[in-house]
Amino acid sequence: MVPKGKFIAFCGGEGAGKSTQIELLAAHLRRRGRDVLTTREPGGTPEGQQLRRLLLTPDGDGWEPMAETLLMVADRVQHLRRVIAPALEAGTDVLCDRYALSTLSYQGAGKGVAASFIRELHRQACDDFWPDLTIVLDIPPAVGLARSKRRLSKEKSDEDRFERLGLDFHDRVRTAFLDHVRKNPETSFLVDATQDISAIHDAIRGRVDALFEA
Amino acid sequence: MVPKGKFIAFCGGEGAGKSTQIELLAAHLRRRGRDVLTTREPGGTPEGQQLRRLLLTPDGDGWEPMAETLLMVADRVQHLRRVIAPALEAGTDVLCDRYALSTLSYQGAGKGVAASFIRELHRQACDDFWPDLTIVLDIPPAVGLARSKRRLSKEKSDEDRFERLGLDFHDRVRTAFLDHVRKNPETSFLVDATQDISAIHDAIRGRVDALFEA
Repeated sequence: MVPKGKFIAFCGGEGAGKSTQIELLAAHLRRRGRDVLTTREPGGTPEGQQLRRLLLTPDGDGWEPMAETLLMVADRVQHLRRVIAPALEAGTDVLCDRYALSTLSYQGAGKGVAASFIRELHRQACDDFWPDLTIVLDIPPAVGLARSKRRLSKEKSDEDRFERLGLDFHDRVRTAFLDHVRKNPETSFLVDATQDISAIHDAIRGRVDALFEA
Repeated sequence: MVPKGKFIAFCGGEGAGKSTQIELLAAHLRRRGRDVLTTREPGGTPEGQQLRRLLLTPDGDGWEPMAETLLMVADRVQHLRRVIAPALEAGTDVLCDRYALSTLSYQGAGKGVAASFIRELHRQACDDFWPDLTIVLDIPPAVGLARSKRRLSKEKSDEDRFERLGLDFHDRVRTAFLDHVRKNPETSFLVDATQDISAIHDAIRGRVDALFEA
């Protein structure tokens, strides 16, 4: 039997350090001899990369929350069927920057699209496929946005759009992340992302090593 | 009370002459003193115009049928809320080149996405909003595609992509159009689009004049 890969998603607010932690975890898993694919949403396929640009820099007045939700799920369908599922079937571990929980949190809790609709859409369009583990990097929005702003002053980032939505929005998003972890302790893991990089990595590594031993 | 506009969608296969008939009907309604907006899907908003390009000329291997369906509905949400509904509320008649029936026919019957899913998505995302009248310009696929090909040799058209899908695909799409008209005689109208332009226009004008007198 071909070993199946593990699917690990990273979610969290702006400035929580997802990219850094994904790279550190990928390096750790590779040292353990695993094949690892790091990817992201939106934009994990060539078609999705076009969609990412259109989501982050729309012409006109920007997307309606419902339209934005459908675009995010369209990107996920493409990503899941063309990249994630084939990699997992080949035994590769997939580390994904954002997945379905981000849609529930940003477009759902943040922008008011019904969670029940997003969940049903995930069932129908993505075969209700969830990660083996969703890691939530938790950071108070004010802290994360300040971090993110410092980074933005150095490099042009397309995450700018979400950062303009205000603290209330980001508080709702954070609450949705925390609720999900509370309700799904077996398949999610909360990390305090105000800690230093190596402490965060140690926590994640401990949880992920346990996943592989399970 | 402000007079409410009528919403009329045009569907039909490639080469059926939708654009020509929309312009002729718009001119007729304007002569009757109506305000008329002509628009199209996908691409009836600035954001949707970006989405249209991405649908018709995707990078990579093209969209999964399910992803394509979600993109079409995202375009429709944007179009409906930002353009169609405000126009109708202002008393303007809206003539739209393609609407929900095209998604049911192309992505549903043509590409195999479940009609029940597309209908439910239309209920949830578009408040189950249907045109006062959907006009189906019916043409045998072989005839329409030949017409469309002649036009394509003169002007670069982005409809090219659907034309490469083959006659079986277009037969399924046509059957879905015909089924819809059979099941929805009050709100749809079938026109034989192999007739000459003025005969088609006369038939449409007669049905639309009746709609305004109803």
